[in-house]
Amino acid sequence: MLEGLVQHDHALTVGMILRRMRTVTGNAQVATLRSPGQIDRASYREVAERADLLADALSKLGVGEGDRVGTFMWNNQEHLEAYYAIPAMGAVLHTLNLRLFPEQLVYIVNHAQDKVILVNDSVIPLLAPHTDKFETVEKYIVVGDGDASALPADKVIRYDELLASASPGFAYPEIDDRSASGLCYTSGTTGDPKGVLYSHRSTFLHAIASGMTDLLGVCGNDVVLPVVPMFHAQAWGLAYAAPLVGADLVMPDKFLQGEPLAKLIEGEKVTVAGAVPTLWMDLLRYADEHKPDLSSLRRVPCGGAAVPKSLMQAFEERYGVLIVQAWGMTETSPLGAVARPPRGLSEEEAWGYRTTAGRIAPGVEARIVDEVGEEVAWDGESTGEVEVRGPWIASAYYETDAPEKFHDGWLRTGDVAAITSNGFIRITDRAKDVIKSGGEWISSVDLENELMAHPAVREAAVIAKPDERFTERPLACIVFDEGKEVPAGELATFLLDRVAKWWIPDEYAVIDEVPKTSVGKFDKKVLRARLEDGELTDRHTVDKIEAAPAG
Amino acid sequence: MLEGLVQHDHALTVGMILRRMRTVTGNAQVATLRSPGQIDRASYREVAERADLLADALSKLGVGEGDRVGTFMWNNQEHLEAYYAIPAMGAVLHTLNLRLFPEQLVYIVNHAQDKVILVNDSVIPLLAPHTDKFETVEKYIVVGDGDASALPADKVIRYDELLASASPGFAYPEIDDRSASGLCYTSGTTGDPKGVLYSHRSTFLHAIASGMTDLLGVCGNDVVLPVVPMFHAQAWGLAYAAPLVGADLVMPDKFLQGEPLAKLIEGEKVTVAGAVPTLWMDLLRYADEHKPDLSSLRRVPCGGAAVPKSLMQAFEERYGVLIVQAWGMTETSPLGAVARPPRGLSEEEAWGYRTTAGRIAPGVEARIVDEVGEEVAWDGESTGEVEVRGPWIASAYYETDAPEKFHDGWLRTGDVAAITSNGFIRITDRAKDVIKSGGEWISSVDLENELMAHPAVREAAVIAKPDERFTERPLACIVFDEGKEVPAGELATFLLDRVAKWWIPDEYAVIDEVPKTSVGKFDKKVLRARLEDGELTDRHTVDKIEAAPAG
Repeated sequence: MLEGLVQHDHALTVGMILRRMRTVTGNAQVATLRSPGQIDRASYREVAERADLLADALSKLGVGEGDRVGTFMWNNQEHLEAYYAIPAMGAVLHTLNLRLFPEQLVYIVNHAQDKVILVNDSVIPLLAPHTDKFETVEKYIVVGDGDASALPADKVIRYDELLASASPGFAYPEIDDRSASGLCYTSGTTGDPKGVLYSHRSTFLHAIASGMTDLLGVCGNDVVLPVVPMFHAQAWGLAYAAPLVGADLVMPDKFLQGEPLAKLIEGEKVTVAGAVPTLWMDLLRYADEHKPDLSSLRRVPCGGAAVPKSLMQAFEERYGVLIVQAWGMTETSPLGAVARPPRGLSEEEAWGYRTTAGRIAPGVEARIVDEVGEEVAWDGESTGEVEVRGPWIASAYYETDAPEKFHDGWLRTGDVAAITSNGFIRITDRAKDVIKSGGEWISSVDLENELMAHPAVREAAVIAKPDERFTERPLACIVFDEGKEVPAGELATFLLDRVAKWWIPDEYAVIDEVPKTSVGKFDKKVLRARLEDGELTDRHTVDKIEAAPAG
Repeated sequence: MLEGLVQHDHALTVGMILRRMRTVTGNAQVATLRSPGQIDRASYREVAERADLLADALSKLGVGEGDRVGTFMWNNQEHLEAYYAIPAMGAVLHTLNLRLFPEQLVYIVNHAQDKVILVNDSVIPLLAPHTDKFETVEKYIVVGDGDASALPADKVIRYDELLASASPGFAYPEIDDRSASGLCYTSGTTGDPKGVLYSHRSTFLHAIASGMTDLLGVCGNDVVLPVVPMFHAQAWGLAYAAPLVGADLVMPDKFLQGEPLAKLIEGEKVTVAGAVPTLWMDLLRYADEHKPDLSSLRRVPCGGAAVPKSLMQAFEERYGVLIVQAWGMTETSPLGAVARPPRGLSEEEAWGYRTTAGRIAPGVEARIVDEVGEEVAWDGESTGEVEVRGPWIASAYYETDAPEKFHDGWLRTGDVAAITSNGFIRITDRAKDVIKSGGEWISSVDLENELMAHPAVREAAVIAKPDERFTERPLACIVFDEGKEVPAGELATFLLDRVAKWWIPDEYAVIDEVPKTSVGKFDKKVLRARLEDGELTDRHTVDKIEAAPAG
């Protein structure tokens, strides 16, 4: 190697962002909604000083390098403090999903061997019933002064008392940027949850990339509302990106309904907000009724599930809010693609891009692969499973073998897609949700999006039902807006100009709600099980598809 | 280290950007101005294929890993091909400054031990006279079909013939991202030039960071005109950032005057252009006379020297073009700071930030240090020498000791500045240009900026002149617009409301031109020498400073 290189070993660490919070971005702030109307504020400089105290206190509790510290918390200032203190001191921030099923929670805490868990008082009831099964947890640090009597008394410490007893000016160790900074388990739909272990390097790179105009474009003049939970893929990295660039953060804590979110956006003049589509549907319903001022919002990355075009159109037309679809998963840190359309297109052409999962992010490499492992051409038509790799993409799970997910440095995403010649990923299905009908594939995702564009349809999930002649046919499970049910034939007619005729489901099941996974995605596994068990009983067959009357 | 980390060893290489040019950004293009009105175009996909040919050809010429390959070229498509082929094949891209003095050029080529030099036919006259002193150069690859007879005939190869003889599909090696990708010498004002050796990691990180909204914000929808030469600090990284995000590049080759630049901006609808202030002054003069349509420009990072506020104001008021000041140097890759003002300020307050060198970039850490090495507070007033460190900042020169520039991982920039509490660097001087008057420091840079705001002043450079009473006093060397000379007293009066009264120079020297370094910076060393040699003879003393009449 030649001598005299630039600082090629300058470590890319969470501690670097923490140093920036004390200095360059120290005047920016985090605001936390504590109860309706009550907002606490702290500058990043204060957050950094409190992170020092937390690191000192954890260190005195015996937390050392590589130890896992769990958080079971909403999005709030204290969670932000944990986001910095724990990795910067060399320990591993293990964010626990508040919506896990009990057996998953127990599995994950024991698998990660969490030594300490920070828990918001408001979610103690979700955690406490299982503490007797946690094998490694020595302390529960309770954030908030609510009742903690359900936790083992000898293991409880109050966060504020802990910080009050700690010393300022913690001496952080030098960290190799290839060591672990964070851990997040994916609630896979099959088998045990699997841990994704982020490194300092991947976290820092992802934070820098989040500031790219083509990705989230978070900048020093933004006010960022991460509605997406900090326990889910590190809040899409927003809790690292915002302090890095000096954007303010607005934390909704447990108040994730349309009304408090709308009031936060209005009151704090939020410019960027990230959330899954279902939450934006809630917000839209609230907004349509109460007309809050959402004009400060300049960009809303939305992902975690396909974003219905109708939702994007509604926000844009009624509120001037630009929703930008983004794609990723826990394994991808999560930024994998963002759907900013190319310049110089007609509105219709631009929508053609905006309704894709997005353009492959700088730093991420992707390919599509067919069933025999051959690469598929990027012609925008041919489909295969999406595989990705890159400096913030997982190539293994934490202490769990999963050769079916990783090979030759590539992550198999489980998404089936076509890629356009300019790198936009058009997802047609989850590999396991594909409907194989008469030797051809039907995209359940496309059908769902088209069905959800019908004014009476609140949610639609399409699954395969066995069919003697075609092997499989689509069954559309529909949640109607209250009192708005329409006949099956009308839905079929509605689809006529929108999808290939042979795709159109000839049967519809009316359901009360689409079951969701712990991160809010449609859980079609549950629907398939209900179909098998004969529980989808409110079924309607299409008699006749009629073309819409001309004009 | 815990098992199962994300791809923490995924190499961040120039080759990664090259792969992206074949795929995601392959449809974007580079346009090169060949002669007035004649523009050649190639897609990035084509550039990547030609880079493969170049790599194959160089490899056959014996260029191996770590070998230095020089380029003596303007900004054009072939230079872009070299930017990718050379690092991706494991060799080192050594960009030679076309404006070097002969002895510097000879020193640099020999110090770097360039094995091959790619040279544009139009600059052969600058290179050929010295080839007999180059100790290691085996081949000259001539780009363009102009006369090459001045070069040693046995060493000349034509670029097009070379590519025609090469094979496609070059097999690039795996590259450790901490190995060298590029080399650029700084034309220091003292001693021999010194080489800055960029790594693949630093180059990739810098390219990602260039896409951040707070920095250059280059995105897939941009058309980027790097007026700043590719031989100067890697064209501020634009030649890597644009292909990474998929922005088009517009290359001016040797046509760097106001007219061709204005026509390129107008014709190619350029959205981002980077250049040093003097070139923008040329462009402004042309634009004021010919009124080209510059409305496509959305952001113009400008740096390399302090950007006069009057220049920024003129472009903004007359053409709606936002010039953004940026700060950096060859040693900083070069992005160190960008002056985007915080939100919510009055126009005047915003100008207070826009006229700084900028806010410290994410990824860069900075401090200011006084004469005894103590850190100075960030209060916006106290000054010290700026020191920086970070993953794209040099911590040594290529095979040259320079302990006076580097210590404890920090680079001493030679700039004297105050830093505001929110991380904006306000440069008051070059350490060596500081004027020490009566025990206090006078900022030559501030004086120059204020003087250049006077409508009759084209350029102003302020140097120290010895003074018995005050040790030093400022001497302002003024270039007037043709036929617009004004008396010294008027300049002094003009400064009265703008700087502290004791700063105001009591003597002015009228000169024809401010001498410039090879990268276009004011070369005050030359002015000081002229002063010493008694060559600054057109001197005017201020008789009386009069306050401007009220109202």
